[in-house]
Amino acid sequence: MVREEIADHFKVLQDSICKALEDLDGTSTFREDLWDRLEGGGGRTRVFAGENIEKGGVNFSAVFGPSSDLLRKSLHVTDPDFFATGVSIVLHPSNPMVPIIHMNVRYFETSAETWWFGGGIDVTPHYVNREDATRFHQHLKQVCDGHNTEFYKKFKSWADDYFFIPHRNETRGIGGIFFDKLSSPEMTKDQAFEFVFDVGRAFIPIYSRLYLKHHNELYTERQKEWQLIRRGRYAEFNLVWDRGTKFGLDTNGRTESILMSLPPDVKWVYDFPVEPGSEESKTLELLQKGINWIS
Amino acid sequence: MVREEIADHFKVLQDSICKALEDLDGTSTFREDLWDRLEGGGGRTRVFAGENIEKGGVNFSAVFGPSSDLLRKSLHVTDPDFFATGVSIVLHPSNPMVPIIHMNVRYFETSAETWWFGGGIDVTPHYVNREDATRFHQHLKQVCDGHNTEFYKKFKSWADDYFFIPHRNETRGIGGIFFDKLSSPEMTKDQAFEFVFDVGRAFIPIYSRLYLKHHNELYTERQKEWQLIRRGRYAEFNLVWDRGTKFGLDTNGRTESILMSLPPDVKWVYDFPVEPGSEESKTLELLQKGINWIS
Repeated sequence: MVREEIADHFKVLQDSICKALEDLDGTSTFREDLWDRLEGGGGRTRVFAGENIEKGGVNFSAVFGPSSDLLRKSLHVTDPDFFATGVSIVLHPSNPMVPIIHMNVRYFETSAETWWFGGGIDVTPHYVNREDATRFHQHLKQVCDGHNTEFYKKFKSWADDYFFIPHRNETRGIGGIFFDKLSSPEMTKDQAFEFVFDVGRAFIPIYSRLYLKHHNELYTERQKEWQLIRRGRYAEFNLVWDRGTKFGLDTNGRTESILMSLPPDVKWVYDFPVEPGSEESKTLELLQKGINWIS
Repeated sequence: MVREEIADHFKVLQDSICKALEDLDGTSTFREDLWDRLEGGGGRTRVFAGENIEKGGVNFSAVFGPSSDLLRKSLHVTDPDFFATGVSIVLHPSNPMVPIIHMNVRYFETSAETWWFGGGIDVTPHYVNREDATRFHQHLKQVCDGHNTEFYKKFKSWADDYFFIPHRNETRGIGGIFFDKLSSPEMTKDQAFEFVFDVGRAFIPIYSRLYLKHHNELYTERQKEWQLIRRGRYAEFNLVWDRGTKFGLDTNGRTESILMSLPPDVKWVYDFPVEPGSEESKTLELLQKGINWIS
């Protein structure tokens, strides 16, 4: 499996996800911006602004060229050139009862010997619903178990650690799975590819279930305000702690594509009051690492 | 001049600025939160939410204790203990024609020999007004010239470099002055103190002029939307690039006090369209380093 084939598969994944999201929302279509990277490669940035999916981005890119010192240092590689391709998704729904969802699948190589896959799916509810969380994690476990029965536990814990906001002492959401550097000798390239694409193909079933269950629910002004507060936390994580965002901004990536993940609007209120026993308070109690959602 | 005296003067400065801002806005008063730091010291966080000054923070803190490895490394000091005190201000006005303003004055020491002052004032207009920018910089130059005729040029250029958003290739605003590590043998402690307090005392005259000139101006929906977009850039700078914010969040500072600088609300729009020749476009052209506002 050569790099171009992997990139082509990512493009097909992007196409099918965009099509499914347009059908799901039913009020708009994706805008596409094609862009080239001076040093090599480029991307297809696709953004969505609908009535139900308020702001969404489904980005594909495949970039290559000489690797900078920063890139070599940060990825612990020594080869002079690199190739990277992937699909990144963030969806911000209008309805606060529908969670924010994020997915990323990626492939990186510097030579025939040095390559790896990474990726994951995680969900950030404005209000945590235990039943949804359990079903979501069960779905991910099922996808993982089809490849290796140790994956779910390991990648769930990795997501807990990655999607954590130290300065708030809370997780970004209910986690999901996160993995990086899937490579030989643990897996063949074909095995890693199959796993990553099963994760990619799980995105629409997972999001559809959450969206269809909640997008017509009524909500109060208070719940809408809470959504904007939680979107603020999402922005804080992405801008302060997310290594992918930081790396993109540090290495002169395409800013509008990278920051497409930011919410459409956000509120920051000093010391926002949360009443003990409220739904908001119950959500905060569940934004912690190490919760076993399945058992 | 001992550390406690300097801290006391900062408290008096905080008091007088809060009083003046309450008078200026005329619709609300500051809320004060007193807090203690486990390892030593504490602060007086004061926040304002009025009709005209939509969100404002005027914070005083004086903290001390053992210095961490991170602190010693980042400040290039070796002593086992540190003391830091200062006043930090950010004001987000309701009216997009009034600029956002930021001021910080600070004192740091680790021993009788190792001490320094830092600080500055800078302004972030949603719409750059050349006449205001010139008067603002003239005012700062006058304050600087009273102490050292080389200060303005040096500290203006420092502000240009500091308040820069690399991933947008634009400055945060029209700059101002920024300085750090004012110390002996270049200046005595008394000289540095006098300069820093002259900067602190310039805050109210500078802000009053901008506020009184513009806070009753009519504005359009488009101008309000542009303010929210520009507030997004402000949040990006503070969360991604501001070393003070990053250091505070990394060292377990009081999150609500540190992030009080974030705007009350923000919009992020993918590839926000700016018409050539519009006021928004003219503002973008002026968000660059190295503009000589005075001549």
